[in-house]
Amino acid sequence: MPVSDSIQAEMQKVNALFGETVVKGRNFAALDQVYTVDARILPPGADLIEGREKIKDFWKGAVAGMNVQDARLVSVNAHLAGDSIIEVGRAKLFLPEGQSAEVKYVVEWKQEGGAWKWHTDIWNMNA
Amino acid sequence: MPVSDSIQAEMQKVNALFGETVVKGRNFAALDQVYTVDARILPPGADLIEGREKIKDFWKGAVAGMNVQDARLVSVNAHLAGDSIIEVGRAKLFLPEGQSAEVKYVVEWKQEGGAWKWHTDIWNMNA
Repeated sequence: MPVSDSIQAEMQKVNALFGETVVKGRNFAALDQVYTVDARILPPGADLIEGREKIKDFWKGAVAGMNVQDARLVSVNAHLAGDSIIEVGRAKLFLPEGQSAEVKYVVEWKQEGGAWKWHTDIWNMNA
Repeated sequence: MPVSDSIQAEMQKVNALFGETVVKGRNFAALDQVYTVDARILPPGADLIEGREKIKDFWKGAVAGMNVQDARLVSVNAHLAGDSIIEVGRAKLFLPEGQSAEVKYVVEWKQEGGAWKWHTDIWNMNA
């Protein structure tokens, strides 16, 4: 089932928060609004990481390590599945010296405290 | 909601079919029993690929290219979400000369013709 326009708008806000506030703004506390408390991420080059606090540590390290300047996420499609949303999307990472990296991802969203958040997050690089 | 024992058993059969029949046995026609007809995969190092026929071409090329000898998939957890199942798992790829690679994945399963199949499949390497 397709997601409604109002949910799509909510998802876009969260995706933009991740790019602008977390990555560009280096505000990792804002990840409270992005991930559920028991979310899990599956990053390339590392093992599965479970729990929002550990996920914050991961992103602090990863954003600093690659010196990512900004990230822009674009939803390719999203559909409702019970209490979840399955989103397929693309992201572009802006790196120093005009470099960039193309990423694609699958995110399972769940509601926490009335807000849609990322519950399962896996991505990889196109090249 | 957790998946029932009988669905878990069905998922294990499909996961084993992928490893034993497709990868080890080089039987790519068997992917009809693994992927839905409109499935999409998100492979590392390539763009999104949509549709079972294109997915067969991808796996033919990828298995030959890395000369993968075998693949073993282990479910970490799986839960029902509406008409879908969200599975997080690990896989080990057996490569020539005793080499191997650790992979993790997220698969969204859907029913097609009464059988559970992979509908959205994304993975990456742990190292």
